[in-house]
Formats: sequence, structure tokens, C-alpha cells
Amino acid sequence: MHTFRVWATLPKQVEVQVSGRNHAMQRDQHGWWKAEVASAGPGSDYGFVLDGEGPFPDPRSPCQPNGVHALSRVVAHDGFKWSDAGFRAPPLAAAVIYELHIGTFTPEGTFESAIGKLDHLVQLGITQVELMPVAEFSGQHGWGYDGVDVFAPHQAYGGPEALKKLVNACHARGLAVLLDVVYNHLGPSGNYLAKYAPYFNDRYHTPWGWALNFDGPHSDEVRRFFCDNALMWLRDYHFDGLRLDAVHAIFDMSARPFLEQLGDEVRALSRQTGRPLLIIPESDLNDPRLLWPPEHGGFSLDAQWSDDFHHALHAVLTGERTGYYRGFGKMADLAKALHNAYVYDGQFSEARHRCHGRPPTGLDGHRFLGYAQTHDQVGNRAQGERLSQLVNLGRLKTAAALVLASPFVPMLFQGEEWGASTPFQYFTDHPEPDLAKAVREGRRKEFAAFGWKAEDIPDPQSPETFQRSKLNWEELVREPHAGLLDWHRQLIKLRQSEPALSDGRREAVQTRFDAGAGWLMVERGPIIVVCLVSDRAQHVPLGEEGPIILLASDTSIRVDGSSITMPPDSVAILRRR
Amino acid sequence: MHTFRVWATLPKQVEVQVSGRNHAMQRDQHGWWKAEVASAGPGSDYGFVLDGEGPFPDPRSPCQPNGVHALSRVVAHDGFKWSDAGFRAPPLAAAVIYELHIGTFTPEGTFESAIGKLDHLVQLGITQVELMPVAEFSGQHGWGYDGVDVFAPHQAYGGPEALKKLVNACHARGLAVLLDVVYNHLGPSGNYLAKYAPYFNDRYHTPWGWALNFDGPHSDEVRRFFCDNALMWLRDYHFDGLRLDAVHAIFDMSARPFLEQLGDEVRALSRQTGRPLLIIPESDLNDPRLLWPPEHGGFSLDAQWSDDFHHALHAVLTGERTGYYRGFGKMADLAKALHNAYVYDGQFSEARHRCHGRPPTGLDGHRFLGYAQTHDQVGNRAQGERLSQLVNLGRLKTAAALVLASPFVPMLFQGEEWGASTPFQYFTDHPEPDLAKAVREGRRKEFAAFGWKAEDIPDPQSPETFQRSKLNWEELVREPHAGLLDWHRQLIKLRQSEPALSDGRREAVQTRFDAGAGWLMVERGPIIVVCLVSDRAQHVPLGEEGPIILLASDTSIRVDGSSITMPPDSVAILRRR
Repeated sequence: MHTFRVWATLPKQVEVQVSGRNHAMQRDQHGWWKAEVASAGPGSDYGFVLDGEGPFPDPRSPCQPNGVHALSRVVAHDGFKWSDAGFRAPPLAAAVIYELHIGTFTPEGTFESAIGKLDHLVQLGITQVELMPVAEFSGQHGWGYDGVDVFAPHQAYGGPEALKKLVNACHARGLAVLLDVVYNHLGPSGNYLAKYAPYFNDRYHTPWGWALNFDGPHSDEVRRFFCDNALMWLRDYHFDGLRLDAVHAIFDMSARPFLEQLGDEVRALSRQTGRPLLIIPESDLNDPRLLWPPEHGGFSLDAQWSDDFHHALHAVLTGERTGYYRGFGKMADLAKALHNAYVYDGQFSEARHRCHGRPPTGLDGHRFLGYAQTHDQVGNRAQGERLSQLVNLGRLKTAAALVLASPFVPMLFQGEEWGASTPFQYFTDHPEPDLAKAVREGRRKEFAAFGWKAEDIPDPQSPETFQRSKLNWEELVREPHAGLLDWHRQLIKLRQSEPALSDGRREAVQTRFDAGAGWLMVERGPIIVVCLVSDRAQHVPLGEEGPIILLASDTSIRVDGSSITMPPDSVAILRRR
Repeated sequence: MHTFRVWATLPKQVEVQVSGRNHAMQRDQHGWWKAEVASAGPGSDYGFVLDGEGPFPDPRSPCQPNGVHALSRVVAHDGFKWSDAGFRAPPLAAAVIYELHIGTFTPEGTFESAIGKLDHLVQLGITQVELMPVAEFSGQHGWGYDGVDVFAPHQAYGGPEALKKLVNACHARGLAVLLDVVYNHLGPSGNYLAKYAPYFNDRYHTPWGWALNFDGPHSDEVRRFFCDNALMWLRDYHFDGLRLDAVHAIFDMSARPFLEQLGDEVRALSRQTGRPLLIIPESDLNDPRLLWPPEHGGFSLDAQWSDDFHHALHAVLTGERTGYYRGFGKMADLAKALHNAYVYDGQFSEARHRCHGRPPTGLDGHRFLGYAQTHDQVGNRAQGERLSQLVNLGRLKTAAALVLASPFVPMLFQGEEWGASTPFQYFTDHPEPDLAKAVREGRRKEFAAFGWKAEDIPDPQSPETFQRSKLNWEELVREPHAGLLDWHRQLIKLRQSEPALSDGRREAVQTRFDAGAGWLMVERGPIIVVCLVSDRAQHVPLGEEGPIILLASDTSIRVDGSSITMPPDSVAILRRR
């Protein structure tokens, strides 16, 4: 016996179809329909018939074994044998996050195959794995941001059971696991929610489709849908936290915003279970309100993705100034980012054509993620080039040192640790020809504005674009990959052993630089990071006598009295005597 | 010689046309065009020619002598002889506001004719006059919320000079003057702003037209436009404050929202001039963030229009429960509103189909306007009936007593003080036949949903609808008008002489009621307001011995020991011994 429930305010009649037979459902005053079906249970496939149309997948489908247009399958979450009792995620202050995409992380591209690579992450010093979205989306492969069955782990990755195995295996190795969830829109294919109820709000537009209804009529249930989704991943799949995709596209004018409610509900679950649970929004608003405590009018979310540090670093290292790198590129921006997180905290932004941001007053460095690469910053390039395709080894090592010695929570993107030679390109697998064409042409048009020819843009729909983006694990034993991997290991080890480096107090970060000469120095208590971004060697004045070199990107780096001799494009980490 | 300036990022060429001759303008890097024209000066008519098209009115036109589609006119603000040096508006704690609509306040419908009625307001005890929007709109008459030249006082009301005369005359009588401004949309006719620059934002929709661009590219200049508009009214026209129309339709995701910036700029002007200046938003969000101080994440605006108290009072007095009165009507709602301002501070609202609001923690009663009638609540009825057309004299007196003895800043709508027999209907004067038709049909359709027949809805475009809405000043010497006017005068006098009544501490307001019997008692220190909303006389228990009657709606009301005998639909104000 299984009880089916679904919220559907729009149809006049709802039935549940199980094994080809329709069963009548009863509606309550809030628009929830219910039916008990004696013959159904875990493993049963079902769909809802709305006013005679359908069957359609359950908006809260826990499993879509045959894709986004087919029947849903009942899942019993209590069947899995967890072995992670007592596992507690480390705090953000001690975290090093690793963002990965299941489909390209391993050759097989599944949850289970990822387990084979976890020891690599442990040896690297990673504490938190972050999975890019796993909610069922149209087609076999894709980035995952166009998910439509937000409660169902993608079947091509292995579905619900396999995902639990992966999380359990992470916990067995002491790795916490975060999940990227998309609460700002749903994908264009397989989205049947609008047939059920007002999930969408026509007052607002997102760049990717209909905005979700967080403040209009019936929005309480839409909030319930997403809050329940968050709680499900944390409770039934044992995730240790969520990354919220692009919250700047969550439009909500209400007096008690959805993000505040979500934070409150997740904190309540954390108190109830005794497990630390994190909410980490991605935001391009440079608005500290996401993080401020309620008594300061904020939502108390744990930390945020913020791209300013990335952009400042990337623009200095690559010299790129187009698109969103406009208004970045000065050494002063990078120095500011290293202690302020936001470069734009109120000033005019050339890229945005308006003033942007607000000072992150009172917020610790551990409330911000710091990274040199992410799926977005790599994958949203025309050809998905990693930083390792854009700059030399010295600059790559500099990027790693600045990220891993920053006051922020450092994050790496899969393969970054060895300068993977594989790109991370934009790939989709839409079966609908019109949609496939629109995605292909949209991508070409987007980059045509930057002077790219259509034939130089990888076709998102081509299976090769996906294949090309898979990591090549064989290369990491070869140079320069092996050396770069070792550099990351040493940096993480140093960060984790040196209290000054995991100190999150932004005001304790001191920076000095000479933009003309190309050097930047970051002082964190007794630790000094010196980097030179220049093709000319320099003697960099240290301002004090003889610090000891802890790590150096180049064997020719040496300290002479109160200066350090740096070859072109090099970095060193020193300790004061 | 006059220097013309205009912000125009969209055209490639901008000229200014004066006396039929085009003059080239020079563009700066921010998109501001400038030209000095030797032959022009105050009184010159001009327009801007955009890429050879036009001339169009200046977005910042200070005067539109020939309507919204015609040329703008240069105005010199330093020519007026002000005689109000040293005038300072009374604080909100001492304020009684009077909302009026220039077009219908007097038979002539002009700024200057309104001066003749100011002594009536002074005698009534009004401290703050609030003018419904006066910015130039399409046609001769209208409510004013579809203004398009937001810097130009409506010509049919008398234009800039006459408006200054009115403000000066108010100040001469000790009356402060507030102006209603519309910063959420522009009207549908005569709106040329989109030809100049991105004033509008296509990410958001308002019910009335394009949303303004407060957070997209180039929004700094759009904010400048509206902030400068606010500062102009306060500085050049000597207004003492602004009422902001419907801020729930101002969409703005930025880290430093427009409303915060506006508040900051107005406070800076206030500090600089030593004049108290108020910003009073109308909001249906029940969100205290508008009022909270910045250290609590708020915008520190002075007070807000909030309809919950109105709706609670109106629903109890009239028994109406449709439209936005759904979810109001219980005596408990009215009692809650009297100390909490918001009835909905987080609960489920039937009318909105979602939870609504947030507790107004820490906010004084003087941060909320309290009213039984406004232009909206009267005029948005199918036939624009005032409360005096809906309830008997006893209930009218009850409404007045509850408003004027509330902890809020009381506000009356023109003619309310004498129970004017004239309605305030929805009237427009669009010269465009299509627009006229759309407005007429839209109005009919809106009320058809509530069962109204088309022929019973006054035609907004008919001049008679406007004429019918003008106050009839001859009636106020006749009963029952004269008696009701006297009742209001006595209530205001009592409020202004009795410190307990102007005490804004919401926590000092105690309420008791018997919903079945229909009585409600409001205790404010030594003052007790007792009202009976019932067609049956009652003995209402006072809970103490023999308070003295200060004001009574009916001569038969009397105190007997610890109870008060109330005839049907009556109200009394008592003082404890």
C-alpha cells in the first residue's frame, strides 16, 4: 500500500495512474490531492492524470527511471544501510572544498564510479566535496542547471541508491558532501509543474526561463516545495549542506523572504539532528544581507560564492578585460579582494553600468568562498578553457597559493589540482530538435558578440563536447601535472597546519604591492605570501630581515637580507623569524 | 542664455529645439548632452530632437504649458517670493494629515483656489496637508497617478508658480505640506522617457505598466532622476515631505536599494537646511524593513501608509468581506490593528493566498498612518462611495474616534470631516480614443468580477464623473454635515490636548472587546474609548468605577458605576477619575 499525494490547484480532477490503472484522488481545501493505492509500494511507477490529460511525472518525483517525460517511481528512503552514524562535517573555518561534476569526473560519469576517486581527494587534503546539480534533467548528460525533477537524483548518474552510496563513501573517508541546488528556475524540457499549480510568477523574468513564485498567491506551497527539497537532500541523502545556485535570480519582495525561511528550516534540522548543515548561496549582488544575522536584517546564511576575488585574480593573471572582467585587472583590485572579498562594495562597475555592492561589514573571511576556477568561470568561456590553458605554470602556482592562503574558504574545481589538460565545455543533450537548435545557436550568438566564429564554438549538443570535458586521470602522474598536484597538496597541508592561514579575520590580512613591478605581498600574521606576476625577475623588498621560505614555486627563489629575489611569474610562502 | 542638459544614452544625436530652431548638443561620457543657447531663458519653450525625430518633451521638464505631448518650458525657481522663512513642520507625533486632490477639492480645481479653503483646515486642527500627485499627466483631470512629466506641476492646476503660492499660503497658516509622488511607473500617455535612455526594466512588471529601472544597467542615472525629483519638490517648492506611492511596485534587488538612497539623500537635505523633511511610503508588504534603522537592515523611512487598520475598521463597520476585505471583519482584527498596525504579521492571508507580513517589532505607532478613508479606499470602489454612504452616523463617528484616538498618525480624506455627500470616483481624461476605451473597459471588467453591471460603473472618461467627485462646500453648514464636522474638530482638539492620545507607544495601547455583543474598548493611559458596533443597545462593563465622559456620539450615553450604557452604533471617550 502506498499513499500518493500531490499539490495541484489548477486541475479540477486529479488521478494517479499506477500500472496503467487510474485511481481517483481526494482534494483537501489547500489543493493537496491524496489517494491510497493498495497495489503500490516502493518501486511502483506512477504518474498523475490532470483533467484526463497525462499521466505526467510527479513534481516531487523521487526517481525518474525513464527520463523527464516518463513515469515517476516510488522510493523508500529507509531501505539504505547507512554506515556514517556520528559523522560530522568539519566547520567552514577548516574546509577546503572541491567542486565536481559527476558526469565528467570519471570516465563512467556515475555516482558509484566517483567513489573510486575519493581517496585522491582525501590525499589532496579536501574536506568538503561539492556536487554540481544532480536533479533529473532532460537527456543523459548536461551541467545539471536545467533540472526539472528536483527531488530525483539523475538516473544516468545512477539514481537514488547510487547517490546514497557515494555520500556514505565520502563520509566513510571523513569527507563532507555539499550539493548544488537550483531554486531560481526549472529547465525548459520536462517541466510539467505549471500544469499543477502556480509554481511560477509572471511578475519577474530570469535569463533562463520563468521565475519561480516565492511571493505571489499560493507561494507558501512553492516555498514548501523547495524547503522540503532542501530538507530531503540533507535528511534522506545525508548531505552536509547545499550550494544555492544564483540567488540573484530568486525574486521575492515578501516581508519574510524565502531564503530566510530556508535558512531557518535548515538550522532547525541541524539543531534537531546535531549535524552541522551549511547553506552557501551563489550571489552576484555583493549584498552582505545574505550573510548578516537577523538582528542586522540578514538571513544568516553560512557563506557565499562571490566572484570578485576570482575576477580580480583571473584578470591580473591573464590580462583579460572583456565581458565580466571589465573593471578588473588592477593589482589594487586583487589586494582589495584579498581582505574585502568584494572589490565592488558600492563603486561604479563598468561591466554592470551602475554602482554595485555594499561593504561586507562585520563578516569573517570564512563567510566567502575563494577560488581561481569554477565550473562557471571555466565552462562559460567559448571553449571551456581552464586557467592552465591560459597562463604558465608559475602563474598557475600563484593562483593556487593566493586561493589556499586566502582568508576565504578555498575551493578547487575538479582537475584544477593537476592542471587538467581537458577543458570543461558547455554540453547539453536535449532530445527536442527545436530546443537543441536554440541552445546551439544561442551559444554561438553569445560568443559572436566577442568576435568568435561559429565553427570555433563547440556544439553543446555534440556528444564529443561532453566526452572532451571528462577528466583524464591518466595524466596526473605526468609532469607538469604531478608537480602541480604536489604543489596543491603542500599548500593545503600548510593551510591546515598553520593557524595564521586558516584565520578568517579579514582585518588581519595585510597587503602591499607594486603594480608597475608586478609584485603583491599578503601578510597573515607570521606568514607572508609573495608573488610576482611579471615576465621580468625582481628583487622584492620584504620590509624586514630574513624570513624563511616555506614553499616556493621555483628553486631559484631566495631571500637576501630584507629582500627576496623572484624569477618571472613566481610565488613563495615565507615565515617571519 | 540658458544651458540645456538631458541624459540620453539611446540616440546617436540629440539637438535642442528652441523657437523652431535646432541647436546641436555635446555628449559627455556618461550620456549627458549639453547645449548653451544664447536666445533662451526662463519662459522659453523647448524640446529635444532625437536622431532627427521630435521634438519631444524634456524628461525633467519643469513645466508643460501645453500638455504632455508638447514642448517643455524653462522655469527659474529663484523668481518666487517666499514668505515662509523659519517655517518648520510639526513632528509626526503631533500631526493630523489631510489628503486632498487639487482637481476636486474646490469647484475651480486649482492650486490657487485651494488657498481659500486652508482656513477651514486650520480650524479643523489639521497640521499636514497632503496633495495627491500633481505631476503633469495626460488630459485636464485625473487622479494624478499616471503622471509622465514628474518634475512639472500639472498645468491645469495652475503650474509651477501657482503651486508655490499654495505651499507658501499653507506655511503662512502653520500648515505643513506633503506631496504624493509616483516612483513605481509612468503613465501610458505622454511617456517619452524610453526614447532617451533605459528608464525601464524589462525584468519586472507592475500592474500599471513598465517597471522602472532601479537595479539594471544605467540605473544610477534613473535613481538620480527620482532622487533629484524628490529633492526638487522639497527644495524648490518647499514641500515638507513626500508620500511615495505603492513602493511594493518598486522592484530593486540591489545591495543598496533605491529607497534607502532616497531616504539618505532627503535626510542630508534636512540636515543641511534645518527643515524636518518626511518620507512616507505607501506599502502593502507589511514589511517593517522600510522603517527599521540601518543597523537593523532597514531604510529608516519616517512612516508608512498601511491598510490593515483601515481594512479591519472598514470590515467591522460595513460588514463587507469581498476583495481585499477577505480575511478582515473580526473584532479581534481591529483590536490587533489598534496596537500592532499590521493585522497580518506573518499569518496566512485569504485575500493574498499566502502568508503575509512580519511583526513591526520596535516601531512606534507614529511610524504608521491611521485612516478610515483615503482616495484609494473610496475611489477604488465601483461607485466611489465614501464611508458616509455606507454606514450610519453613529458608525461614522466611531470610525473618526478610533482613527483620531489611535496611536497612529491620523489622516482624513478631503470631505471626510463633514461626511461629504459627493463621491470620489475614478476619472480620467485621456485624449487618445484607444486608451480611453481601454480604461473604460478595464474598469468595467474589474468590477464585473464582483457582480457589477457595466451601466452601474461610472464612465471614467465622462466629464461628469469628474464633476460629480468635486466637494460641495455648501453642504457643510447643514446637518448632519455640520455636526460631523464638529465631532472631528472636537476629537482632534482632544488628541492635541491630551498627551495620552498622542502617545505613540503601541505597547501602551490596551484593548478589550466582546465580539458577540459588538463592543470594543481601547485604553490609552487615563483615556478610554468605548465603541459599540451593534444595532442593539448594551451595558458595557468598564472594569472600574465612574470614568467621566469627555466626548460622546449620543446624548443618551451615560456611565452608571462601573458600566456604560451605549445606544446602538455609538462611541464615547472617557477619562479615568
